[in-house]
Amino acid sequence: MTDRRHVAFLGLGVMGYPMARHLTTRGHSVSVYNRTASRAERFCADFPARLAATPRLAAEGADFVFSCVGNDDDLRSVTLGETGAFAGMKGGAVFVDHTTTSAKVARELFAVAKKSGLGFVDAPVSGGQSGAEKGALTVMCGGAAEDYARAEPVIASYARACRHMGPSGAGQLTKMVNQIAIAGLVQSLSEALHFAEHAGLDAAAAIDLIKNGAAQSWQMENRTATMLKGEFDHGFAVEWMRKDLAICMEEARRNGSRLPVAALVDQFYAEVENIGGKRWDTSSLFALLKRSAWNLT
Amino acid sequence: MTDRRHVAFLGLGVMGYPMARHLTTRGHSVSVYNRTASRAERFCADFPARLAATPRLAAEGADFVFSCVGNDDDLRSVTLGETGAFAGMKGGAVFVDHTTTSAKVARELFAVAKKSGLGFVDAPVSGGQSGAEKGALTVMCGGAAEDYARAEPVIASYARACRHMGPSGAGQLTKMVNQIAIAGLVQSLSEALHFAEHAGLDAAAAIDLIKNGAAQSWQMENRTATMLKGEFDHGFAVEWMRKDLAICMEEARRNGSRLPVAALVDQFYAEVENIGGKRWDTSSLFALLKRSAWNLT
Amino acid sequence: MTDRRHVAFLGLGVMGYPMARHLTTRGHSVSVYNRTASRAERFCADFPARLAATPRLAAEGADFVFSCVGNDDDLRSVTLGETGAFAGMKGGAVFVDHTTTSAKVARELFAVAKKSGLGFVDAPVSGGQSGAEKGALTVMCGGAAEDYARAEPVIASYARACRHMGPSGAGQLTKMVNQIAIAGLVQSLSEALHFAEHAGLDAAAAIDLIKNGAAQSWQMENRTATMLKGEFDHGFAVEWMRKDLAICMEEARRNGSRLPVAALVDQFYAEVENIGGKRWDTSSLFALLKRSAWNLT
Amino acid sequence: MTDRRHVAFLGLGVMGYPMARHLTTRGHSVSVYNRTASRAERFCADFPARLAATPRLAAEGADFVFSCVGNDDDLRSVTLGETGAFAGMKGGAVFVDHTTTSAKVARELFAVAKKSGLGFVDAPVSGGQSGAEKGALTVMCGGAAEDYARAEPVIASYARACRHMGPSGAGQLTKMVNQIAIAGLVQSLSEALHFAEHAGLDAAAAIDLIKNGAAQSWQMENRTATMLKGEFDHGFAVEWMRKDLAICMEEARRNGSRLPVAALVDQFYAEVENIGGKRWDTSSLFALLKRSAWNLT
Repeated sequence: MTDRRHVAFLGLGVMGYPMARHLTTRGHSVSVYNRTASRAERFCADFPARLAATPRLAAEGADFVFSCVGNDDDLRSVTLGETGAFAGMKGGAVFVDHTTTSAKVARELFAVAKKSGLGFVDAPVSGGQSGAEKGALTVMCGGAAEDYARAEPVIASYARACRHMGPSGAGQLTKMVNQIAIAGLVQSLSEALHFAEHAGLDAAAAIDLIKNGAAQSWQMENRTATMLKGEFDHGFAVEWMRKDLAICMEEARRNGSRLPVAALVDQFYAEVENIGGKRWDTSSLFALLKRSAWNLT
Repeated sequence: MTDRRHVAFLGLGVMGYPMARHLTTRGHSVSVYNRTASRAERFCADFPARLAATPRLAAEGADFVFSCVGNDDDLRSVTLGETGAFAGMKGGAVFVDHTTTSAKVARELFAVAKKSGLGFVDAPVSGGQSGAEKGALTVMCGGAAEDYARAEPVIASYARACRHMGPSGAGQLTKMVNQIAIAGLVQSLSEALHFAEHAGLDAAAAIDLIKNGAAQSWQMENRTATMLKGEFDHGFAVEWMRKDLAICMEEARRNGSRLPVAALVDQFYAEVENIGGKRWDTSSLFALLKRSAWNLT
Repeated sequence: MTDRRHVAFLGLGVMGYPMARHLTTRGHSVSVYNRTASRAERFCADFPARLAATPRLAAEGADFVFSCVGNDDDLRSVTLGETGAFAGMKGGAVFVDHTTTSAKVARELFAVAKKSGLGFVDAPVSGGQSGAEKGALTVMCGGAAEDYARAEPVIASYARACRHMGPSGAGQLTKMVNQIAIAGLVQSLSEALHFAEHAGLDAAAAIDLIKNGAAQSWQMENRTATMLKGEFDHGFAVEWMRKDLAICMEEARRNGSRLPVAALVDQFYAEVENIGGKRWDTSSLFALLKRSAWNLT
Repeated sequence: MTDRRHVAFLGLGVMGYPMARHLTTRGHSVSVYNRTASRAERFCADFPARLAATPRLAAEGADFVFSCVGNDDDLRSVTLGETGAFAGMKGGAVFVDHTTTSAKVARELFAVAKKSGLGFVDAPVSGGQSGAEKGALTVMCGGAAEDYARAEPVIASYARACRHMGPSGAGQLTKMVNQIAIAGLVQSLSEALHFAEHAGLDAAAAIDLIKNGAAQSWQMENRTATMLKGEFDHGFAVEWMRKDLAICMEEARRNGSRLPVAALVDQFYAEVENIGGKRWDTSSLFALLKRSAWNLT
């Protein structure tokens, strides 16, 4: 059990809500802010937490301020300006951002925070909604080692694995590595299932056998059944994946790396969006290949 | 322990040699044939086996004849014609082919075998050389159920998993599903590692963290270390992967399925071959992305 | 006007029919063979030509035998065997094949022909049905220079451009260069039109302006209007393009070249086939991008 | 001959320098500004033009202000702020921007200009350095029809084709259509040449023949010779192409279109940059395929 801390949580979406709940369960003193206030009100009705009208008010007096919002702009809006958290934080407090953002905004905010005597840790997560609910997220952190060290026991409230990957931005960069690894993997799995069906095989049985070997992946073990049933209303949404891949492509442009398959799969995801799949799980690449059969337009 | 059987093994390459060895260890009465006779002679010197000058001579009197050769044409040459195994096999005997071939040749030979009162099971494997040596291969089988049922206990000599996937050709088709799933997966892993290095991350540490989640794969767990060191003199050779992908692409053309990423990655493998990597492991897609850094031409 | 020759034409499809007609117009003495005899009968009713029941009978006495059939196997069947043209041709006669085939079969038949004292020129064409009708084809030839020199004046009956590209197979290889150049070009044009429409531009006006510059192509000038109208019932059929691309990919595998975009576009053509476009023009890649809008399945 | 006008030209790079020169030749009264002043000084030494220390000073009294700078940020810096052109322009004057930028910045500046009683026409060009020097550019315009109508006779000083494509941003969007059409076309041409060489053909002769038909393109006619010689120190630089493709990809993301081949080719361009080709012509995609042969790293 860690020490009881004063903490704030900004952004109570499908990820942030259960993460903030774990903080209350661990006995921390929690204040919350959410853009749509009703959701924050519900949180305060269900769990021992204080409702704050602005990020700044939530952040006042807190040792740690956590955020899990939508994108770079959202992050800027909860940290900077008159009502932003930085304006309310006390000297030495640490801001921990769980949003998946560009490394650029992470470094910008790190620099701003430092000037005000604050810490800033970029700490994107993987594990999805179910990982957040079970408190079993993987957290990839960038920033000053001492800030990380202080924040780590609190982050542990909802993490199964948490690591300091390097200076500011390193957390975001690690998350990008994760998304890049997934993109082509899911497409290949989709092609494999698509081929299996066209070849007249029992696709589930084929996967059940080959998952013992070199083709095995988490996606193969955890997504094959739903893919074959055409169920995509779960998991990590295509529109979020595209947001993340856009960040990856831009960073790759900056650092001189090449991502041919990630770039291509991103365009396939654009097609998933075209057929109505913005909110479908990333495994819905399979839906494109099934399209004729399913009569999707 | 299964019953002692008379078996023949045709093709003592890096896969076939240890597979045949397991048959002797299990107590079966083994005759062997290899195109390059010296290798068969060595086998007979090391293990209790009978040397045969032709596939036909090896097959005479055998209950089961196994083969593990190079490609469709090699398989035809050890089964058909005057000196082929079919000419020597006794009625009711079963030919089990472990070569990765087209489904077409498997069905052709199944039909030919049937006319002669023989069984034919297509039974490609995965698990590579180390799987063959440890007797821990995954075997994917197609053919008549009764032939499979009789062969299964003998195949078990070197298999960790063995399954009947359907009629003749189904084993080969399942192997294709395996190779298709691997192609884009390895490319995505390569892109992820390449990006990690360009981003200034400790790539090994990044993988070590993200392998807890949705990006996890056998390749990530078993190939990252060698990839980062630039070691590719092991594993499954690019030229074999290309042979297999050619079979996949042709079958896809026939059955109307689409494999955009597999088709693209096959062309990347062509580039690996161009830079001298015919014998490198499939994970050498990473070498293409590293090229400038490593000064490869 | 060239000398009057005895010629045979094998294969009176959409290409061969008008090509053979041009031979009669130029005053050559023509015998014809077609697998579906009724079509050959119609030809003989319309034009001064002799009907032959087999390729061999058509070829007897001819100075030149032309063919324009479907694929490698079709070509073998009209040249080889008891009823094949080679069996009927007189010493010194030249077989000119206008089919798009593999370079391999061209070389095989060249060798067979040579042994019988015959010439064999591989001479695939481009220009499509309208080029055939207008006698304005481009003909790419491989084979012995002297055979080419003798055949050239007769080929000129339906060619706008005709050239000897090198030894046996060189004609086919040149045709492959043509198809490879077209594949990605048409896809890029499709992406450009698709983007123009999504951007709210008058796509036709945009093309009309940019075709003055570095983006110009024959496809842009001749296919934009029909693409924008969704008309694809004309031109060069997707299933023929895929046949040709399969030949290209196999030859590339043999000669060690890499065709990443051709490989990818071939898979997009597979999708065109899936939505019912086997017979559509190659420009129908655009249909895939329009799909949602047009409600195609 | 058009009326003599007071005009300003901002940005005297490889494109802007000759464009501004044409304005002086046509008799317009020209003031110039360039970030690196020495280049503007040289211009004023060579041609009848007035040197201005800031965009604002150049713009004072002008009927039309032209710009040709690097990117969105450069454009903002020469138009906005204390020393920007907008601050100096008189009511009713029109700003014509020849930079290739995002449609977004064009619309932003159009709105800002409108509030100040100014016109803003986005007018990117194609035709490259040689087109600029010969006064033979293609100019694609967006903005208010009346502003375009007034600017058109002055733009004609260096244009072969100039057209109003629609409201603000339409010029930039048309330029994007142009770049998208080029990307895959050049890659396909590169693959065709690469294949031709590996096939043992005389690649130049092959292109010379097929350029009569459906594979023809401006690139094929104007770039084949230099590509085959490995000459890329000319034309349109890869780093500019990548800047443009990044704009295309972002706009496509916004408007819901899909550009799979453009996305992939952009990654190939990243590889060209990796091997030292930032300044090479776009046709240098061929260099990647030749790499082993040329021993590039």
